[in-house]
Amino acid sequence: MLGRVLCTVLFVGALPSPAGASQGHISVILLGATGDLAKKYLWQGLFQLYMDQVSSGHSFTFHGAALAALEPGQRLMFDVLKRLSCPPGEAPDRCAVLKDQFLKLSQYHQLKTAENYTALNREIETLLGQEGLREAGRIFYFSVPPFAYTEIARHINSSCRPPAGAWLRVVLEKPFGHDLDSAQQLAAQLAGFFREEEMYRVDHYLGKQAVAHILPFRDQNRQFLDPIWNRHHVERVEVVLKETVDAKGRTSFYEEYGVIRDVLQNHLTEALMFLIMELPANVSSAQEVVQHKLQAFQALWGLERSSAVLGQYQAYNSQVQEELQEARGYVSTTPTFAGVLIHSGSLRWDGVPFLLTSGKALDERVGYARVLFRNRAYCPQSSTLRDAGHSQCKPKQIIFYFGHGALRAPAVLVSRNLFQPVMPKDSWKEAEARSDLHIFGQPLSDFYTYIPVKEREAYSVLISNIYHGRKDFFITTESLLASWAFWTPLLDSTSRRPPRLYPGGVENQHLLDFEMVAGGVAFTLAEPAELLSPGGQTPSDFRAVQSKFRQSPLVSGWAEELISQLASHVEQAAVSSVARSGQFHLAVSGGSSPAGLFQRLARHHFGFPWQRTHVWLVDERCVPLTDGESNFQGLHRHLLQHVRLPYFNIHPMPVHLNRRLCVEEDGGAELYAKDIVALVANASFDLVLLGVGADGHTASLFPGSENGLEGAATVVLTESPVKPHQRMSLSLPLINRARQVFVLVLGKGKHDITTLLSRVGHEPKKWPISGVNPSSGQLVWYVDYEALLG
Amino acid sequence: MLGRVLCTVLFVGALPSPAGASQGHISVILLGATGDLAKKYLWQGLFQLYMDQVSSGHSFTFHGAALAALEPGQRLMFDVLKRLSCPPGEAPDRCAVLKDQFLKLSQYHQLKTAENYTALNREIETLLGQEGLREAGRIFYFSVPPFAYTEIARHINSSCRPPAGAWLRVVLEKPFGHDLDSAQQLAAQLAGFFREEEMYRVDHYLGKQAVAHILPFRDQNRQFLDPIWNRHHVERVEVVLKETVDAKGRTSFYEEYGVIRDVLQNHLTEALMFLIMELPANVSSAQEVVQHKLQAFQALWGLERSSAVLGQYQAYNSQVQEELQEARGYVSTTPTFAGVLIHSGSLRWDGVPFLLTSGKALDERVGYARVLFRNRAYCPQSSTLRDAGHSQCKPKQIIFYFGHGALRAPAVLVSRNLFQPVMPKDSWKEAEARSDLHIFGQPLSDFYTYIPVKEREAYSVLISNIYHGRKDFFITTESLLASWAFWTPLLDSTSRRPPRLYPGGVENQHLLDFEMVAGGVAFTLAEPAELLSPGGQTPSDFRAVQSKFRQSPLVSGWAEELISQLASHVEQAAVSSVARSGQFHLAVSGGSSPAGLFQRLARHHFGFPWQRTHVWLVDERCVPLTDGESNFQGLHRHLLQHVRLPYFNIHPMPVHLNRRLCVEEDGGAELYAKDIVALVANASFDLVLLGVGADGHTASLFPGSENGLEGAATVVLTESPVKPHQRMSLSLPLINRARQVFVLVLGKGKHDITTLLSRVGHEPKKWPISGVNPSSGQLVWYVDYEALLG
Repeated sequence: MLGRVLCTVLFVGALPSPAGASQGHISVILLGATGDLAKKYLWQGLFQLYMDQVSSGHSFTFHGAALAALEPGQRLMFDVLKRLSCPPGEAPDRCAVLKDQFLKLSQYHQLKTAENYTALNREIETLLGQEGLREAGRIFYFSVPPFAYTEIARHINSSCRPPAGAWLRVVLEKPFGHDLDSAQQLAAQLAGFFREEEMYRVDHYLGKQAVAHILPFRDQNRQFLDPIWNRHHVERVEVVLKETVDAKGRTSFYEEYGVIRDVLQNHLTEALMFLIMELPANVSSAQEVVQHKLQAFQALWGLERSSAVLGQYQAYNSQVQEELQEARGYVSTTPTFAGVLIHSGSLRWDGVPFLLTSGKALDERVGYARVLFRNRAYCPQSSTLRDAGHSQCKPKQIIFYFGHGALRAPAVLVSRNLFQPVMPKDSWKEAEARSDLHIFGQPLSDFYTYIPVKEREAYSVLISNIYHGRKDFFITTESLLASWAFWTPLLDSTSRRPPRLYPGGVENQHLLDFEMVAGGVAFTLAEPAELLSPGGQTPSDFRAVQSKFRQSPLVSGWAEELISQLASHVEQAAVSSVARSGQFHLAVSGGSSPAGLFQRLARHHFGFPWQRTHVWLVDERCVPLTDGESNFQGLHRHLLQHVRLPYFNIHPMPVHLNRRLCVEEDGGAELYAKDIVALVANASFDLVLLGVGADGHTASLFPGSENGLEGAATVVLTESPVKPHQRMSLSLPLINRARQVFVLVLGKGKHDITTLLSRVGHEPKKWPISGVNPSSGQLVWYVDYEALLG
Repeated sequence: MLGRVLCTVLFVGALPSPAGASQGHISVILLGATGDLAKKYLWQGLFQLYMDQVSSGHSFTFHGAALAALEPGQRLMFDVLKRLSCPPGEAPDRCAVLKDQFLKLSQYHQLKTAENYTALNREIETLLGQEGLREAGRIFYFSVPPFAYTEIARHINSSCRPPAGAWLRVVLEKPFGHDLDSAQQLAAQLAGFFREEEMYRVDHYLGKQAVAHILPFRDQNRQFLDPIWNRHHVERVEVVLKETVDAKGRTSFYEEYGVIRDVLQNHLTEALMFLIMELPANVSSAQEVVQHKLQAFQALWGLERSSAVLGQYQAYNSQVQEELQEARGYVSTTPTFAGVLIHSGSLRWDGVPFLLTSGKALDERVGYARVLFRNRAYCPQSSTLRDAGHSQCKPKQIIFYFGHGALRAPAVLVSRNLFQPVMPKDSWKEAEARSDLHIFGQPLSDFYTYIPVKEREAYSVLISNIYHGRKDFFITTESLLASWAFWTPLLDSTSRRPPRLYPGGVENQHLLDFEMVAGGVAFTLAEPAELLSPGGQTPSDFRAVQSKFRQSPLVSGWAEELISQLASHVEQAAVSSVARSGQFHLAVSGGSSPAGLFQRLARHHFGFPWQRTHVWLVDERCVPLTDGESNFQGLHRHLLQHVRLPYFNIHPMPVHLNRRLCVEEDGGAELYAKDIVALVANASFDLVLLGVGADGHTASLFPGSENGLEGAATVVLTESPVKPHQRMSLSLPLINRARQVFVLVLGKGKHDITTLLSRVGHEPKKWPISGVNPSSGQLVWYVDYEALLG
């Protein structure tokens, strides 16, 4: 072994080395050295790294490791190494010499016990000491199943850390958890062993040349893109990965993950983020890229049940039954196809649909991220009477083509009627014209088409980036958790939904076409009867039921469905109120329950008569309006900033007069009361939206105080048992003058008070909510199943 | 003559008459009975009316009139009448009998002098008296040049009104004026003679079957259209009239009018209004239709220079020279092609482009109004691998096809992937499938296509509607003036602009393609040199110049150009301020000058960092914020309601505290001062926008008062010499702390003060504006040519 390293060092010395002196030694340890991924990509990537960096001044050793004993492991590994290929374009002589060197620098280790790790560490130390080499760093590549991560991480941390001054990089392969909770757990465990900068989480899409070029492309073409990279010009963004293969042979993995976890949560989301993030000033700064990516995540609207359509190819279920030895009646709801609609609330992208789609057993294998621009032109000449040319009336798009498909290569395509892009000449070249090819219904000649000068495997790109410490090519913990936080609600809300079955391949035809409807997506065609789930039963979930609660109408359902019903009812109230009086006076409560309602109104109710709506507050905390605790602030964030309400129609409570909070003598309550009298006919709100506290409070009327329960005062200052104590609230008599009062009760935490309220009578001093009883108006309860049924 | 009428009455009696008794007699007087329009359409329309209504219970006489003497006039007219044709589908026997009757009921009159009119009236009266007929009404059809209108109207009003109980209908043909002023003048003159309900202004497009069916179509298909007839689904609306003919032989008319007055102001605008107006509950109610049309006009954004592209076919100028005997060097700027971008600010249509286009000497003759819907679908199957079918991914549109073009008939087309429309079976039928036809690049089989059961000339439709008193098929005075008010600013601002020359016919190719850019439109291709205007000179208009005014930088230009420059500079200031401090504090003045700036910012500056901008008022009138006189109200109307500024960033002056106005002890000025100190670093605004009064005031700092000119107070109460007297204003010292101050001066009315200010020094007590002199900031003057040069 000594001989080998010595030989390398000499060899390195023999090649032109920039610094003359060694930059230090790098040990690469590949865990799972004889597994599929290692065989197929990783060893080849390491060999490529060696070829590229042999004259960098660094010296290398490569350590394959697995659970197998030394002798059989060694044999297996060297069988793989012997088959390493020389990339096209590499001089065969040089490559043969380097391959020989690479084999000599590589060795196999059994890594099973704590002692094995200690031994490995000692070997590296000994070797370096003997050769008088300074250690630059160690790369541990985890090509092992995630359940083994913690164990291995513990060993590396306790036994295999390089000495001070040298770096440690651990490379992790997905899956990184299964949902937000599990990802957080795994991240917390790893954080016990490694520092954030030591971890390189691989998403191999970030190594795909077309994906990796998205940010550089946006950067190098700023002058063309700046004016059009926004909601005024972009019609939609599509990120798509279509596969022809199915999950056969992999169902044990697939049945646990499904297409969203397998592809959308990671690969497609990452490509989308590169497209939509604000462009960092320096796109090579990993820190800036990560920061902008996080901001882009924060601007995304939360996914709902209706955000996705799900499918499953018809043969999947029997494959699962067979491979997992499930009973004949077993019905899998794991989706193998998903179409998801994503929206960003950022100023740049507001209203632009992002469509992420992936599926197995589809008609072709292709992947792309496509930005489609709106047609901004009118062309008076009839299309039959015009030259071919590159008319502005033809579709305009930019496509980052991941590979496969008609082009059979990664590519960047820009419609010729957009602009001629700037591309780095050393890495991208114009593709040859091919008159037979059509991309998205347009001849290839409609595009400027660039392909890589040298096609590179994603893993080879990534291994090079690990070596260069380019953390922007990897998934940081923050970014990983942001992605899981984004996807988990959808996974939860669709976990029981039976996917649409599809026959697979070209037979799918229009069956998987989907459309944007009412803020979500839905399949265009009704499900054909013959393709219905073999079980035949679909869970009868989420139907809102109507009955009575406390002698008043009750609407109930799962929270999301309930809120969607409530929002429709609020719009109906608004429309009929505007038809009757020209205005709609709505008083709303603070707290978390109405936030969902506000979002639903802002995102799904485009016909809401906001211009004629006045929004009042039911109650307010005595904090500045800009304080995060202010009810008004929540109302603003979830509703007002998304709709066009005239400024004059917005009525925050005056809790902050003369730059102080709720001081009796400032007369804020009286002022609000006067405003109500001046603007609201008979001081009778068209609709008051209330919530209920676990203690039975409503508005800011709390148990045990008579303040606001009776008497002439319509707006009162009250005291809350919890902070901030001071509150302003509409009084019970004023609430009871309303034409309609809707009470929204959500969540398990409200089950006890809901049960209690179903039994007690009118006792507002004990439970202020029980005093809500509009004198001539209507009261409706909206209680979700969790609050109702516990 | 008596015999004739008697004969008719007997004839009418002989045919089945619904009432049995006569519904009364109708006299139709066609003025200009031997003119082109009468020959080509009107007599045929009257004959059709007679055929349709012969058994209605009404009796008729038809009076042709012209300036020619009786004998030659009579001969000319009866030559026309003899050539009247029987419509296809009419039984030839019945038609022959009716044509004979029609000829007998028709007579010629010379109408030249007052006596002629008196005589006509007497004849009608005598006839009716003799026959014992009750008079139902009289129709006077003005098929005469507009300069003759007043004269004829005077005669009719003074001599030819029917007796009480019978109606008068006068039918007027365009042009109805030349711009807003002339239209108002003409309308005022006519109003001296006729009541509004007596006037039927013809726009023959309203009689075209496809145009007339727009509102009924929207009404009958409400259930399909309601969810999609809005900005969320509609991508654009196009209303187009393309002609292949040029203006040869008509240049004397055309040179005065041009394409906008000839076609866009009337025909295309009317078709657009039917598409975009809110749908009346009763689409047959003329009153509701007219009212909704007016509301639709009010919601349109004003047109600007940049709203249109104009062209002129190359041969036009020499045709004008020849026909109008103009000198060789004469250069006409009359447009024969126009493409205009129109926007509505209504909630329904906000952001949807309406493109109106018309031209002579184009490649084909066709007219249509087309609503193009957005693609809301994603279709996973590759288009090469899918059945033809009616995929949701194909374009979706509704087309009202006026006639000619590929279809050679009026038609209503609805994409099959939208919905199958409800069409009245008695008047519209499905067109036969024609596999060879393509409409807008799609095969005709992609559409549900309906054509009229019976094709009817527009004039025949209109004459029937005059008879039925359907005023919704005609242009009311209000609606006419609304249209002129809308178009006149564009006509004014483009009157001196040289149109792009185009060769004509299919040679035009891409030359007239235009695109939406920055809120306006522009030709896509640069003007080719060989087609430049023969004169070679284009007026060098509207270039903003830069120099100095009062030792500070001066930007000057025509008002529109100047405002567009100023808006760009404001955005630059905002962007650099946000980059520097994360915020942009902008203080703005009231008055009319900034309104144009606010609109420009709202409509053209999509990238403005509104989320980080705080807007403050420079001064305010002591009126409630919702008062029309409030500066804040103007700011809200023109800017705030169109952009998304966080509520917390909007800072109206507190002139209305404790429900009273600018009472000293309410401390409003102090409150505002405190807010400024709390939020604006160093109380130094990033940008203050000022105006100048003709008396030299700025903000609400008026000559002759020292209030606010010096001292520590940053916000002061002041007195204006004009109502409302009480004001609140930033003080001069506070203004002078700003980083930048822009002063905007517009209009001839400011010429004197501008001249004076260019000469005087620092004398704020006489001219407060002269005291504006930022201590460490920058002052820039924006003065338009009218203010600068008078």
